[in-house]
Amino acid sequence: MPKPTVVPQSALALDEMIAFIDHVFPEINHGGRSYLIEAVGPGTCRVRLVYHPRHLRPGGTLSGPSMMALADLALYVAVLSVVGKVELAVTTNLSINFLSKPEKADLIAECRVLKAGKRLCVGEVSIHSDHSETLVAHVTGTYSVPPR
Amino acid sequence: MPKPTVVPQSALALDEMIAFIDHVFPEINHGGRSYLIEAVGPGTCRVRLVYHPRHLRPGGTLSGPSMMALADLALYVAVLSVVGKVELAVTTNLSINFLSKPEKADLIAECRVLKAGKRLCVGEVSIHSDHSETLVAHVTGTYSVPPR
Amino acid sequence: MPKPTVVPQSALALDEMIAFIDHVFPEINHGGRSYLIEAVGPGTCRVRLVYHPRHLRPGGTLSGPSMMALADLALYVAVLSVVGKVELAVTTNLSINFLSKPEKADLIAECRVLKAGKRLCVGEVSIHSDHSETLVAHVTGTYSVPPR
Amino acid sequence: MPKPTVVPQSALALDEMIAFIDHVFPEINHGGRSYLIEAVGPGTCRVRLVYHPRHLRPGGTLSGPSMMALADLALYVAVLSVVGKVELAVTTNLSINFLSKPEKADLIAECRVLKAGKRLCVGEVSIHSDHSETLVAHVTGTYSVPPR
Repeated sequence: MPKPTVVPQSALALDEMIAFIDHVFPEINHGGRSYLIEAVGPGTCRVRLVYHPRHLRPGGTLSGPSMMALADLALYVAVLSVVGKVELAVTTNLSINFLSKPEKADLIAECRVLKAGKRLCVGEVSIHSDHSETLVAHVTGTYSVPPR
Repeated sequence: MPKPTVVPQSALALDEMIAFIDHVFPEINHGGRSYLIEAVGPGTCRVRLVYHPRHLRPGGTLSGPSMMALADLALYVAVLSVVGKVELAVTTNLSINFLSKPEKADLIAECRVLKAGKRLCVGEVSIHSDHSETLVAHVTGTYSVPPR
Repeated sequence: MPKPTVVPQSALALDEMIAFIDHVFPEINHGGRSYLIEAVGPGTCRVRLVYHPRHLRPGGTLSGPSMMALADLALYVAVLSVVGKVELAVTTNLSINFLSKPEKADLIAECRVLKAGKRLCVGEVSIHSDHSETLVAHVTGTYSVPPR
Repeated sequence: MPKPTVVPQSALALDEMIAFIDHVFPEINHGGRSYLIEAVGPGTCRVRLVYHPRHLRPGGTLSGPSMMALADLALYVAVLSVVGKVELAVTTNLSINFLSKPEKADLIAECRVLKAGKRLCVGEVSIHSDHSETLVAHVTGTYSVPPR
């Protein structure tokens, strides 16, 4: 399996990444910290969405929009790990496949950058429930980054 | 332009639709009613996301996840207008293109069903700011519906 | 329904468009002319895929890849109608939903540009069989265009 | 990284798979064998598109539609490796991101099934040039399979 061409280490250390995201996205933790950045690497990251009944939907599963927000955040973090502190990167496209019902547990997003171009970065995200190997959702997304 | 083959009128009247969505998705109006179903037709609907600073993101635009949640709700409403009260319809795929920065105003989602199959319903959603003709986002999505 | 912000008329007249596509894509008509550009407007076009048994697949329907090629060409033509003769525009993303089995007839793609940005153009394509109003497929796609 | 829940071995051995694809898709090798199924596993496969100038496009790269056809075939093969000989599986959705220009060389598609449901199978495909580790395209797709 070929590897994407990314930098050898993350442009931001984990604590720098957490501080930067808190700075640019203060609203995502509105009402209590729900999204936890747990690991960053060169073009990769792991982000946890803490289980909270507010994310529920009919049938007891976690809501689709919560997963889309989680994936979007993970993509942004993974892109920043390649391009550094770029506040104005914007999502241009995001496509999600919902694969199975999540359990009543935290969700874990594992993200990797597939392409780190000068203007566009593309990544994929796999989401699963904590302590489960079954995929809950899979996402691909594109971020547009300012010329640098 | 060909028209999708849908029912001649909505399976649910507007007030029935609002009551059904309130019943199955009580959490979407957690903290105040943000999503307003304004119109339903056969395979179509219009849903408004009321402007609220909580949806902001860097640069002052409305957040992507808010738009994804709006589109997902609009797709569900449009699918229900065809198939009737089906609580267990689930999104299987959702793809969004972000087209321009929204203004600091309500967002309007206009949705139409492209296919109403026995098991899968596909629709598209155009999102624009209130009092603006510029598209802010475009979404296509698929719902899986139980056999009926 | 809001309208995309595009130019008031096509940057290329129909005969210019046909000649330009023949020049840059000679291989698409390899083995006989299959794709006919029938109309262009400002950010819109209609392209026909002539029915030919070579496009068949099991069950007698026209193949998915034929429809993807048709949609990709229609997107390119619609983008050129906005940006003019830009040989190096490239597809960055294409997403297709297959909606119903096509008939044994020509396929018609109707395309419109949803966003004509400086670097990215996004459009949608509806595909139906000739003389039928049922949608066969729906496509959204993004082209990256060189700065101009 | 969680693993999709698939069968422990391919439902079809490699030679059975090749024979079955030849039987149901005779047209894909119209004009000479271009698509070679090189490996199948449980929910996985590798398919090669032999380099041929016919797939060229402006700028000398291999065409997008060729890659979409390659990805669609790889998804079908990977789905068959899970569900067995199901002639009437149909693609319902396919989304492709083009990541870099392919070289003038064969293209290799590596596919894995992300979900093998009763009615829907979802998979992803990574495409790279032969003897290169750079991703050329990434695809996700959904097949609808008859109840079994």
